[in-house]
Amino acid sequence: MATDGAETPGHNRQGRIAGRHFLQIPGPTNVPDRILRAMDAPTIDHRSPAFARLGLACLEGMKTIFGAERGRVFIYPASGTGAWEAALANTLSPGDRVLMVETGHFALLWKKLAERLGLAPELIGTDWRVGADAAAGEIEARLAEDRAHAIKAVCVVHNETSTGCTSDIPAIRRAIDAAHHPALLMVDTISSLASIDYRHDAWGVDVTVGGSQKGLMLPPGLSFNAVSDKAMAANRTALLPRSFWAWEEHAGPNASGYFPYTPATNLLYGLETAIAMLNEEGLANVFARHARHGEATRRAVRAWGLEVLCREPRNHSASLTAVLMPEGHSADALRARIRHTFDMSLGNGLSRLADRVFRIGHLGDFNDLMLVGTVGGIEMGLALASVPHRPGGVAAAMQHLAATAPA
Amino acid sequence: MATDGAETPGHNRQGRIAGRHFLQIPGPTNVPDRILRAMDAPTIDHRSPAFARLGLACLEGMKTIFGAERGRVFIYPASGTGAWEAALANTLSPGDRVLMVETGHFALLWKKLAERLGLAPELIGTDWRVGADAAAGEIEARLAEDRAHAIKAVCVVHNETSTGCTSDIPAIRRAIDAAHHPALLMVDTISSLASIDYRHDAWGVDVTVGGSQKGLMLPPGLSFNAVSDKAMAANRTALLPRSFWAWEEHAGPNASGYFPYTPATNLLYGLETAIAMLNEEGLANVFARHARHGEATRRAVRAWGLEVLCREPRNHSASLTAVLMPEGHSADALRARIRHTFDMSLGNGLSRLADRVFRIGHLGDFNDLMLVGTVGGIEMGLALASVPHRPGGVAAAMQHLAATAPA
Amino acid sequence: MATDGAETPGHNRQGRIAGRHFLQIPGPTNVPDRILRAMDAPTIDHRSPAFARLGLACLEGMKTIFGAERGRVFIYPASGTGAWEAALANTLSPGDRVLMVETGHFALLWKKLAERLGLAPELIGTDWRVGADAAAGEIEARLAEDRAHAIKAVCVVHNETSTGCTSDIPAIRRAIDAAHHPALLMVDTISSLASIDYRHDAWGVDVTVGGSQKGLMLPPGLSFNAVSDKAMAANRTALLPRSFWAWEEHAGPNASGYFPYTPATNLLYGLETAIAMLNEEGLANVFARHARHGEATRRAVRAWGLEVLCREPRNHSASLTAVLMPEGHSADALRARIRHTFDMSLGNGLSRLADRVFRIGHLGDFNDLMLVGTVGGIEMGLALASVPHRPGGVAAAMQHLAATAPA
Amino acid sequence: MATDGAETPGHNRQGRIAGRHFLQIPGPTNVPDRILRAMDAPTIDHRSPAFARLGLACLEGMKTIFGAERGRVFIYPASGTGAWEAALANTLSPGDRVLMVETGHFALLWKKLAERLGLAPELIGTDWRVGADAAAGEIEARLAEDRAHAIKAVCVVHNETSTGCTSDIPAIRRAIDAAHHPALLMVDTISSLASIDYRHDAWGVDVTVGGSQKGLMLPPGLSFNAVSDKAMAANRTALLPRSFWAWEEHAGPNASGYFPYTPATNLLYGLETAIAMLNEEGLANVFARHARHGEATRRAVRAWGLEVLCREPRNHSASLTAVLMPEGHSADALRARIRHTFDMSLGNGLSRLADRVFRIGHLGDFNDLMLVGTVGGIEMGLALASVPHRPGGVAAAMQHLAATAPA
Repeated sequence: MATDGAETPGHNRQGRIAGRHFLQIPGPTNVPDRILRAMDAPTIDHRSPAFARLGLACLEGMKTIFGAERGRVFIYPASGTGAWEAALANTLSPGDRVLMVETGHFALLWKKLAERLGLAPELIGTDWRVGADAAAGEIEARLAEDRAHAIKAVCVVHNETSTGCTSDIPAIRRAIDAAHHPALLMVDTISSLASIDYRHDAWGVDVTVGGSQKGLMLPPGLSFNAVSDKAMAANRTALLPRSFWAWEEHAGPNASGYFPYTPATNLLYGLETAIAMLNEEGLANVFARHARHGEATRRAVRAWGLEVLCREPRNHSASLTAVLMPEGHSADALRARIRHTFDMSLGNGLSRLADRVFRIGHLGDFNDLMLVGTVGGIEMGLALASVPHRPGGVAAAMQHLAATAPA
Repeated sequence: MATDGAETPGHNRQGRIAGRHFLQIPGPTNVPDRILRAMDAPTIDHRSPAFARLGLACLEGMKTIFGAERGRVFIYPASGTGAWEAALANTLSPGDRVLMVETGHFALLWKKLAERLGLAPELIGTDWRVGADAAAGEIEARLAEDRAHAIKAVCVVHNETSTGCTSDIPAIRRAIDAAHHPALLMVDTISSLASIDYRHDAWGVDVTVGGSQKGLMLPPGLSFNAVSDKAMAANRTALLPRSFWAWEEHAGPNASGYFPYTPATNLLYGLETAIAMLNEEGLANVFARHARHGEATRRAVRAWGLEVLCREPRNHSASLTAVLMPEGHSADALRARIRHTFDMSLGNGLSRLADRVFRIGHLGDFNDLMLVGTVGGIEMGLALASVPHRPGGVAAAMQHLAATAPA
Repeated sequence: MATDGAETPGHNRQGRIAGRHFLQIPGPTNVPDRILRAMDAPTIDHRSPAFARLGLACLEGMKTIFGAERGRVFIYPASGTGAWEAALANTLSPGDRVLMVETGHFALLWKKLAERLGLAPELIGTDWRVGADAAAGEIEARLAEDRAHAIKAVCVVHNETSTGCTSDIPAIRRAIDAAHHPALLMVDTISSLASIDYRHDAWGVDVTVGGSQKGLMLPPGLSFNAVSDKAMAANRTALLPRSFWAWEEHAGPNASGYFPYTPATNLLYGLETAIAMLNEEGLANVFARHARHGEATRRAVRAWGLEVLCREPRNHSASLTAVLMPEGHSADALRARIRHTFDMSLGNGLSRLADRVFRIGHLGDFNDLMLVGTVGGIEMGLALASVPHRPGGVAAAMQHLAATAPA
Repeated sequence: MATDGAETPGHNRQGRIAGRHFLQIPGPTNVPDRILRAMDAPTIDHRSPAFARLGLACLEGMKTIFGAERGRVFIYPASGTGAWEAALANTLSPGDRVLMVETGHFALLWKKLAERLGLAPELIGTDWRVGADAAAGEIEARLAEDRAHAIKAVCVVHNETSTGCTSDIPAIRRAIDAAHHPALLMVDTISSLASIDYRHDAWGVDVTVGGSQKGLMLPPGLSFNAVSDKAMAANRTALLPRSFWAWEEHAGPNASGYFPYTPATNLLYGLETAIAMLNEEGLANVFARHARHGEATRRAVRAWGLEVLCREPRNHSASLTAVLMPEGHSADALRARIRHTFDMSLGNGLSRLADRVFRIGHLGDFNDLMLVGTVGGIEMGLALASVPHRPGGVAAAMQHLAATAPA
């Protein structure tokens, strides 16, 4: 009864619902038609000269997106979690101590991954309502204590997708430098890359981890490491076993646009187009667009009388907003109601935030009227689900959008 | 600098604008991905058995859409204006008198077309703010006067795309019947078909004219005649020259699923899928969806303190709403501002309504959150263009949507 | 049971057959992925500035394809037969005499169309195995006799799709000129445009008729008139009724890239890309490619001991080859066997050639290995259908391809 | 100058070449339009009920493809090399001995990967012209010697993509059983899955490794492990570090159709369709099709007087054929000539076979006429590159195809 064509778009898998699904989870994001179309093409020989041109365009183009012109970028035919593993496996040895900041669910997952690899992660806690920079003082203190330099890396999440808190990475860098400690700085930008200002080289990051399915507007299936010279040096002595993720296997073929094994060719078609689209808009404009949409969303939340999970304005994420539910009300019931009635997907609360927050993705290929529709769907959903709130969220968002619209 | 991929989506032809264009003109409408994908397939041999299955599926399927199970449907590889010409050329002879009701710009265009074909159209005027049923009395009177039955056809527009007024077709039928007059009844449903309840057989229509690019959710390029037995009989004696449009050329090949000349095969792929989608939702549900969106839109307009062009509630269109601008304010300036700032296309005022109204399309593949975004873009645009209005249109629309949302 | 996705590709409509269908009818031709992808995009507002850029690109681009830089091109949202009607309806008056050359089935159809419009076509016969230039002498004679200039147009088919005979258009022009006769010269290039050298301006043609689904590599649904100043002048006095086809309605909006009624927007996306692709290859290279493939095909036919329908080498078509079956053998049985066993569509014999010839399309987006597969499928089909022939056709075709391959 | 649209199709990346590229490397293979279209759809929320239906359809469907109805299948959002790593990392501990058969380049790469992971692979050599079953005797002997059961796994390649030799897996199973040894049996089916008969359960395989871009007809980016209960038991005690690849992380979410991290959603759309297409054709028919094409290809090679690399008829691969060049002639020069002149990609010789063989892929979405074109391109290329050979390869292939064509 279901058909190839009917099943693939999200909303039609649940019976015909008219119009476009609103995919407002904090990733995967809405894939632009232009990117879907670029991928809708025959796969080519990954050992042909034509492929090499594609490969180089992607490898070089991603340096610009990471702000890693002085570094290297590795591209994996694997989704984002793989690039987390790659960052650690390429630079560290069994038992190495790693300092991490528990900004939320994804920081915890990265820590768990480090443990599985045989590393010794140490976690600095937060209340999940701030960025990792809130722990800068403790990072500095812990590193200063570590006279033997047994801590090999500091790992933080730039934009914690489970909380909507963005970390001030230069503040982390300053903390490491103040401690005069050689630990590598590793940063997860999966939900900030190409949405929030980020500068691998300029901020002194050693390994940056990214994925395709958020600000890059692609389907999931590609992930990235941007790598400093210092990290490349660490790679040469790192003893964790690795093969698929091994930078040293990629570096040679990458130089001429190839990969050490079969790449995800059609996703690279999309990546080449995504890079072109971001450059056509201009990265600075992309960041400003997301910042403006973040602010409009938070104004809506406050107008409803609800609370934004992220407590510190300096940490407010431009790519997603997590909203705390009033005591006694289920975020998942609200999300289900909105999905069912208005064909919109919102992000769920994760681990300790389960059922307590819902998350609004406003990243990727997104514009003002999509935001109005998104906020409108939530406002109607709050009413239908009998969640205590004041109306006026959409009006507040629109007021901000109109007040800051380009002339 | 522009590329194949960059140019085709509307909003990217004007430089990169993020997110999805809101195409809220009253047609062409937003084409669902599923239909675009169905058309994205190799053209097949139009004389092969595989084609015959496609042809029959479309010809039979369209009978259901028109409510013309007892009649015939002809499909032209041509956009909608062609089907107007086909309706007249297939049934009338040079100099024939035709009674038409001037409901708006498109009724006038049809009249002009009739004149070009050598017919003698006679126009019953309206103030462009009602449906053709407002002229039912005069239709009856004129037909009653025409003892010689020189008037061969009564032509009305079911949903006048330039005004947003829908005509009560059964009232027209009753007027003809009351006059005991044999004139054919011809109805243009270009912007109502598959959006507003319509019944070719049950309402006693002889020729119904339809197009692909509105409620059928397809790109433009296909058009239709649904035809009664009485119209088929008229065809046999009609003397207007015709070839491309000639029903008598189609009827034979159509019986086995073929066409007398090369059909628009890829659009037929899309049509087959469109019919399936409409049946999956259920035509009654499709009509209810559009009616609800029309009401929500009009509530927004009234909340703004603006006036809906259509004066009679019974004539309010479920597929579009034309809005009168306050005296001294330019509708085109507003539309340009909205297109530029919010990447939304709205319909312009036509001929005597030029610059005086803007038209909101809420037909086709459309849902609640798209409507909220649409109304939101207009409300913000009114503010930015300094058009006198009250805020609260979006709130009024949302209130109606929430109040009438399915449980 | 069949699905959107399963049904649309030709060969899958008959159950799963692996691999790519060989669509080797003389049109519609194999649509390149790049063109399908260009059309797989949201429809835009046909009254927007973005559309105007598309419209102008297509209107201007088609002038180059027709060799009509000094003339005008009109684009119809209708398949090719419509452009035949447009050519006549725009320039002639009821009862006008028109001289036509019966090169084959399509010339006959055009004549029948002229009759339906109320014109008085006169046919010069051929044996269907030569081009219209074989009738140049008689054309000159008939025109010379017509002292009153009652003959208003000479209509010929450049490449007769039913026979594979191409006409020498300059020879026709010379015949008209030699008779000092003012008749318009109208030429059908539906299956030659963008495949065989053609020059509307340089050859003194007044109206050229073209379609989208052959050398332009698009799906069917667009057709064209290229028009000289002389034909535009005739348009001003021509009395045949017309509206959809009326050049005088198009000329105004066309000047700024628009159309008088809804255009077939998504096919125009494809047309813009098709024009770009033809220019990237270079029209001269496109013509040379088709000529080489025509020669290779004919060598295969001769190696089989079969006869090419077209008798005169100067008339051999570069876009298709019609092959005569040995006496007593059914072309349709052969075609059915090949379609069933090898998933290849070949063209059938039409009217007096029914079941006596099969037609091989080698036009459009076609290359050497597709030709080898095509000829191979026929050679195997001849064996399986027990049609008397010699093997070696593929070998002969390959020998020619290899001998003439670019260095 | 290059455009989104122009660059993505292989052949257009090197300037406009007309017609379809022949991608006849042994994978990635030609992706059917239907699969490309299924992937050309918006990404959906991977935590939604709609996704769960997709996930279960893929996980269950792949069991049928592997013949692993009694086992489990894991799906990685990563290309095939990753699934090699997963097979080892999930079941083995540092320093474990692993017995491998060097059937060719890919067997060597798997061994190198095992070393990088800290295992102790032992290689049984072959001359790269036979399947792994040639080493069955030695496998039995080595295992019999290993009284301590220090060898933990026997790893073989079912179809060695570098040589075109297929291994008799039941023969390997018998060897292990004859030695009464508990080693796990791991089999790489990357270039045989869905092309050559394979039965995970029935043949007693413990871990089968597969990829998306060969017989499954998808772009690269997905890979698979099919896993026996015995391998699942080994997983519980295996000490190699793992996270991304860890079966134990997948098993829980997989049970309800989800994945432990972001899956490659759009490739799963394609996978669902690929499974449907394989089942529509019937796996037995798919295998027979490939076997017939393999035989036709080898007949062409022999007719040319060239040598098929695979020496043993029982090992002849149905998915690819590697051809030895005559002494003193460069395979790469031939391949470059063919790619340049005929727009066909052939596989290169790898490591010790570099420049000495070319490889013809005849797997995936492939049919008789594509094979004729493929063989024709090689025959013409041999002539143009002055490689000593006899003509008649295409004729020999066609003779076999016609002789074995379905009635």
